[in-house]
Amino acid sequence: MIRHRNTPSLRRQTVQHFGTTSVMPSIKSLSSTLPGTLRWDGWGDEDNAFDPGDRPNIWPYVAQHLQIGPEWPRTPPVDPGILELPPCRLDEDLWAALSQTFPDDRLSVDKFDRIIHAYGKSTRDLWRIRHGRIDFAPDIVVVPETEAEVIALLDLASRFGAVVIPFGGGTNVAGCLELYRPETRPVISANLRRMNRVLEIDTVSGFVRAEAGILGPDLERQLNAAGVTLGHFPDSFPYSTLGGWVATRSSGVMSDAYGNIEDMVVSLRMVTPTGVISTHCVPQASNGPDPNWLCIGSEGTLGIITELTMRVRPEPAVREFRGYLFPSFRSGLAALRECADRGCMPALSRLNDPFKTQLSAAFRSREGRFKRKLGQAYKFFLRRFRGFDFDRACLMVAAFQGDKAQVHQQRAAVQAVYRRHGGMGLGRGPGEAFAAAKYDFPFIRDFLMDHGVICDVADTSATWGRLKDLYDDGMAQIGAALGRDGRPTWLGCHVSHTYSLGASMYFSFAFRCDISPDGAYDPAAELAYYANVKKSSLVCFSKAGATLSHHHAVGYEHLPWLTGESRVGDGSMIEAVKTALDPERIMNPDKLVSGFRERDLDNLLTPPGHRTAG
Amino acid sequence: MIRHRNTPSLRRQTVQHFGTTSVMPSIKSLSSTLPGTLRWDGWGDEDNAFDPGDRPNIWPYVAQHLQIGPEWPRTPPVDPGILELPPCRLDEDLWAALSQTFPDDRLSVDKFDRIIHAYGKSTRDLWRIRHGRIDFAPDIVVVPETEAEVIALLDLASRFGAVVIPFGGGTNVAGCLELYRPETRPVISANLRRMNRVLEIDTVSGFVRAEAGILGPDLERQLNAAGVTLGHFPDSFPYSTLGGWVATRSSGVMSDAYGNIEDMVVSLRMVTPTGVISTHCVPQASNGPDPNWLCIGSEGTLGIITELTMRVRPEPAVREFRGYLFPSFRSGLAALRECADRGCMPALSRLNDPFKTQLSAAFRSREGRFKRKLGQAYKFFLRRFRGFDFDRACLMVAAFQGDKAQVHQQRAAVQAVYRRHGGMGLGRGPGEAFAAAKYDFPFIRDFLMDHGVICDVADTSATWGRLKDLYDDGMAQIGAALGRDGRPTWLGCHVSHTYSLGASMYFSFAFRCDISPDGAYDPAAELAYYANVKKSSLVCFSKAGATLSHHHAVGYEHLPWLTGESRVGDGSMIEAVKTALDPERIMNPDKLVSGFRERDLDNLLTPPGHRTAG
Repeated sequence: MIRHRNTPSLRRQTVQHFGTTSVMPSIKSLSSTLPGTLRWDGWGDEDNAFDPGDRPNIWPYVAQHLQIGPEWPRTPPVDPGILELPPCRLDEDLWAALSQTFPDDRLSVDKFDRIIHAYGKSTRDLWRIRHGRIDFAPDIVVVPETEAEVIALLDLASRFGAVVIPFGGGTNVAGCLELYRPETRPVISANLRRMNRVLEIDTVSGFVRAEAGILGPDLERQLNAAGVTLGHFPDSFPYSTLGGWVATRSSGVMSDAYGNIEDMVVSLRMVTPTGVISTHCVPQASNGPDPNWLCIGSEGTLGIITELTMRVRPEPAVREFRGYLFPSFRSGLAALRECADRGCMPALSRLNDPFKTQLSAAFRSREGRFKRKLGQAYKFFLRRFRGFDFDRACLMVAAFQGDKAQVHQQRAAVQAVYRRHGGMGLGRGPGEAFAAAKYDFPFIRDFLMDHGVICDVADTSATWGRLKDLYDDGMAQIGAALGRDGRPTWLGCHVSHTYSLGASMYFSFAFRCDISPDGAYDPAAELAYYANVKKSSLVCFSKAGATLSHHHAVGYEHLPWLTGESRVGDGSMIEAVKTALDPERIMNPDKLVSGFRERDLDNLLTPPGHRTAG
Repeated sequence: MIRHRNTPSLRRQTVQHFGTTSVMPSIKSLSSTLPGTLRWDGWGDEDNAFDPGDRPNIWPYVAQHLQIGPEWPRTPPVDPGILELPPCRLDEDLWAALSQTFPDDRLSVDKFDRIIHAYGKSTRDLWRIRHGRIDFAPDIVVVPETEAEVIALLDLASRFGAVVIPFGGGTNVAGCLELYRPETRPVISANLRRMNRVLEIDTVSGFVRAEAGILGPDLERQLNAAGVTLGHFPDSFPYSTLGGWVATRSSGVMSDAYGNIEDMVVSLRMVTPTGVISTHCVPQASNGPDPNWLCIGSEGTLGIITELTMRVRPEPAVREFRGYLFPSFRSGLAALRECADRGCMPALSRLNDPFKTQLSAAFRSREGRFKRKLGQAYKFFLRRFRGFDFDRACLMVAAFQGDKAQVHQQRAAVQAVYRRHGGMGLGRGPGEAFAAAKYDFPFIRDFLMDHGVICDVADTSATWGRLKDLYDDGMAQIGAALGRDGRPTWLGCHVSHTYSLGASMYFSFAFRCDISPDGAYDPAAELAYYANVKKSSLVCFSKAGATLSHHHAVGYEHLPWLTGESRVGDGSMIEAVKTALDPERIMNPDKLVSGFRERDLDNLLTPPGHRTAG
């Protein structure tokens, strides 16, 4: 992965700009206060981007399926200089009060800071901002460093009638950070990245207490130095924060071994507009409903998580990734279920469907002649003597960890199950290739977006009894929406989190934009096409008894489907507690509430002035 | 265990009776509607009681420590005929409305039905009712059979200004079922035992959907017939309900393998006064704060859980209980922690301290001469060649389960750890003795209460780093309260639930009542003595950073310590959600709220008229 920058030249596009700029005099940018902030137009910081150069098979594969190649017109982001923001509506009193509480270098009304905090990194977010469309931006960015400052900030917001949206790493992909309804009050983005201290590591009891704004790698580095790990490695790991993980119910790739983020929370502190929520560091208690669960998944709607005590585990002596090939997706699913049933789940199991299996093969790095020949010979053996049909075969990557004896035992038990379902070992190569590339997807999304392709994912989970139908329905219905007007598309699926009750299912899709030979296209039409595909996935999940998202939160992008799966009376859980905890509704308003429908989501594609009434 | 009935003759006691009886004309008792209801004066139904006859060592052990024997004055319950209830305050309109909604055989104002529903089965409850003191009784008992009837019941309660207390098996030991504050409104006890249907068992996905009022054995029998188990076996298992387990955050003896009850909840339905809470049956979701956690542990304060979908697991082919002897409690704790750290925890680990170890030995059934000789020889070997000091030695019982190979692997890994900490195998005998006696404790409590001894337990949990001090502090402080006036006492402790973060700690204590040679004693003074011992345990837990209860709920007996360990602003989580879900506060009022202090608990020992103002 090396640096790759687009030339920010504007093609002939029918990009629309909304709003006018009326920013207060910029006092200072936060770039030195918040180093390593994600770039405005995509994933990663300015120094990282995907480079297909050392993956010789990827272009042929992409070219074949999406009918594009290196010569296909490029669709880079606009020149950031032309970006225009909604006017800043900060009144003088609030500004004065904030300036008295926070030093200059932790307050910003700088245009670029407001842009960075306007969106998360969903495909919808990126496509819009890359084409200069910014419907919403916070009026000011504030960077608290202590819980006392967070309390002061919420007090000021209550007093002056402002809204607060907590901001961690800014990696959210569901619309958690953006207001979808026009807001008359000034909006404060509270960037928590400076609350990044590890307060205590207890290796006897196995927990870490840390401030919520710490980034994944910073936390893990300090834990590893003490011989322990949190074991939480979501795709966003390099850029996302501990508090963000908890606020959105995040899952890491090793969740089968360590649990999802909510399983790791021991206790926490969250500042709400009406007081602090605090819980107790004990292994287990029968002390009424657990307030941790008011905070886990609250997506900034009730308050700001300031401190977390998380379970940690000893670093395993050995961690080993291996690949296996199954004759079909169905046989792979059966193997996953049997492992869960028998209590012999690997630390990670990732089952690709045939399409993702072929994509994985195309993604492999350049390999030596001998290794390539060996692979060809094994493939011949599988086809000839085991009857493998490589159009249907599915790659499973499994990880084993522990001490040497434990790894040996786990692997033996798992392989015995795999064999019963026709799985054949492929050795460590495919496993290590997966491990090496595990944080790559968002970079590839950017790369494709530069090349006239929109891609995204739709993740869900369902019980074992529903998974096979869910896969068939998802492939059919997302496939139909993708190919609605006959354009070239790609669709695949994998399973990456296994439970005794069922598993996750993760669809990935891509389509080629409708670009004329001279490079002209309509970004709004492409976004609408994308939105319809994404919606087809959620409608499918809802009908199949699956969930709106396995690990990507609700935000507003998934909100219309929330009350279909969990209800508290006529509304949502947040509505039931908001009155008590945030009576003035200053925290990330209108999120996690009911009453936002599919057609409201369609409305968001049109400029605010043209939206139909709710 | 055979039938054992006390002659209900009244000894010369200074028992006080409060309140007057003014029951509405009894229409019909619920005895045929609710077969198998717990007896009014103790644990179990009329046919079960503890029989020390086949345990030849128990009397010598008890006699030695509590200085009593079979000839010690007995302290049986009063004749139930003399029990007097607070007046029934059901008004005619409410009665008429209830009669129109529920058939005759599912409504009762019968005196005995009201008595049965007045209390749970805490030591405080039993001591009071056995001496004829009933401060509170519900005015009517209603037995709904469907969720629609539960909704109708809460509607009527709201409409007519009545209070509703949900009642499952009635086994609660923390005061969850009793009103501690005088209530002017009529009180309805909603007995849920007739909502006891299994609605769906899905062995492919591994879940059961059942009504909340089903008893443990009825649920488990139907699951076992399908080859699966819930794996939840609390001491109350034979008499408690699924909904009661969830409402109180119950733990079973096999929780190290299956999790605590909250880990098994997949989805649920709970009727609140303002609507139904319903959640979705999926393995994992990132869909906002999980409303399951409004209901888990809610102890009847927000609504009535009507339906639960619970994770089930395949029944293991082999389950094996084994005993081990450790040279000290500290070495046993170290072994538990290392097993948790290395990820090789048995399905159950129960470590007795030296006192509980000796009690366990005394509890053994009569054994043959050869087995006895063999035991003596092994004991000689341990003392002579391994240097065991039997005053300090601790019994560990461990269970292994799975298929034969898994059991073999688990046992080998665990025994390797045990050996490192000086643990020696004792074979299956002690393990099987534990398994056979696992539901006995509450019967023994009744038996001792008949014989002038009050005993109880105090359970908590703490992180590994705090456990050793917690044990020392608990033994010292509970011991000091127990022996305050020099009477004979017994105190012991065990650890029975292990987590990566720490473990449970379960103190058991007993003291001899102060009875004159002619059998006279002051029940109120004995209750006060008991209450002071119980309070010493909670004060100790609170100071040691442990929790108020590992698995026995809050009720009012633990309520003063709730806000010390979890706070939502100035109060509790229930206060934050009650306004929205139960604005008229009809559901089990004043539970799980803050503001109830230690001295309020002392107040409850005095008759209502003599209580000091809050």
